[in-house]
Amino acid sequence: MKPRWKGKGSEAKAIAMYSSKRMLNYPFNRARFGRSRITSQEEAFYLCFSLECLKGIGKDGSIKSNKELWEYSKSEKPAFPISYKAYSHLRHKNWVVRSGLQYGVDFIAYRHLPALIHSKYAVLASSKGDNELNGRLRVWSDVHCTVRLCGSVAKTLLVLFVDSNSQGTSSPSCLEHYTVEEETITRWNPEQSREDQTSLRNQTK
Amino acid sequence: MKPRWKGKGSEAKAIAMYSSKRMLNYPFNRARFGRSRITSQEEAFYLCFSLECLKGIGKDGSIKSNKELWEYSKSEKPAFPISYKAYSHLRHKNWVVRSGLQYGVDFIAYRHLPALIHSKYAVLASSKGDNELNGRLRVWSDVHCTVRLCGSVAKTLLVLFVDSNSQGTSSPSCLEHYTVEEETITRWNPEQSREDQTSLRNQTK
Repeated sequence: MKPRWKGKGSEAKAIAMYSSKRMLNYPFNRARFGRSRITSQEEAFYLCFSLECLKGIGKDGSIKSNKELWEYSKSEKPAFPISYKAYSHLRHKNWVVRSGLQYGVDFIAYRHLPALIHSKYAVLASSKGDNELNGRLRVWSDVHCTVRLCGSVAKTLLVLFVDSNSQGTSSPSCLEHYTVEEETITRWNPEQSREDQTSLRNQTK
Repeated sequence: MKPRWKGKGSEAKAIAMYSSKRMLNYPFNRARFGRSRITSQEEAFYLCFSLECLKGIGKDGSIKSNKELWEYSKSEKPAFPISYKAYSHLRHKNWVVRSGLQYGVDFIAYRHLPALIHSKYAVLASSKGDNELNGRLRVWSDVHCTVRLCGSVAKTLLVLFVDSNSQGTSSPSCLEHYTVEEETITRWNPEQSREDQTSLRNQTK
């Protein structure tokens, strides 16, 4: 699937950004893209823990440590270590990642600034092994539903299988030992995959 | 949502069917609608067990009893008792039910012959209580995905919660004691649900 730029000048704008020295690390190592609104719990934790450009503040006004934020995130969302590993995995690979709420997935991933391009991947984070944390794609109807929806919004379904390698979830440093397997799921199109009839006929002559 | 008839003459055709004496029981108590192809395991069992117009034949050519077909269906699909209860529940209420494979749900339900009208409901069968059999709608992203897809194909999501009332699954006669709760899930549209601004203004005058 070709990149779907938003409007005519967007591609040129994106290329100019790369070649400008001042923008060398922009956008991918920067915290915010477009509207300054955090769209997911994983994003908030990434800004605190990896980029260290955000502080979490408790109701009493005290600044929370990364460990405290980690525990809080886990209590809010048991699958947080898995989904956070998936989120940070994409960020480390220079994808711009936002919440996938609108498309019924965990995240959506953009090649460049969301203002310039449409997202390429609809991402689901899945735990390898632990069935309790695997909320999605357990039955075929869910796979069909997700692939059909992704197709209709011109995204590719990307499933990230996160393996904790029995490292537990006691602290964010466990994540270093987690591994991620990437898999895309798309509909098989017989029209596109069929061998060319003419070339076949030529071979048999 | 208004019924979505296929083409101009379809509604009149359907009404004519109801008023014709010969068609009194047609289409709802008949086995087949349109193309004579069974679209789901539940449909096959319904034709054998409830309508008694189909026989299951084994590889050795012997005719299978309903009990044998029941055991076979369960071995192929552990959630079969639940999905079959959902299927027969809709059939008893005079819905025409076909496989929902194309839309990532268990079934789709038509008011009348599929040749005349588009289906109204996308149906998911869910077991009340037993989490192991509940493959769908366990996490929010799945709910969002399903509701969005249903909306884009102009269907309403209908979830049938089947309660086995601890009756087990030993034979098809258990199903009589199963109960079904119906629930539709739709997107809340603030534009449509907002109180009329003019009438509010009149009240405060």
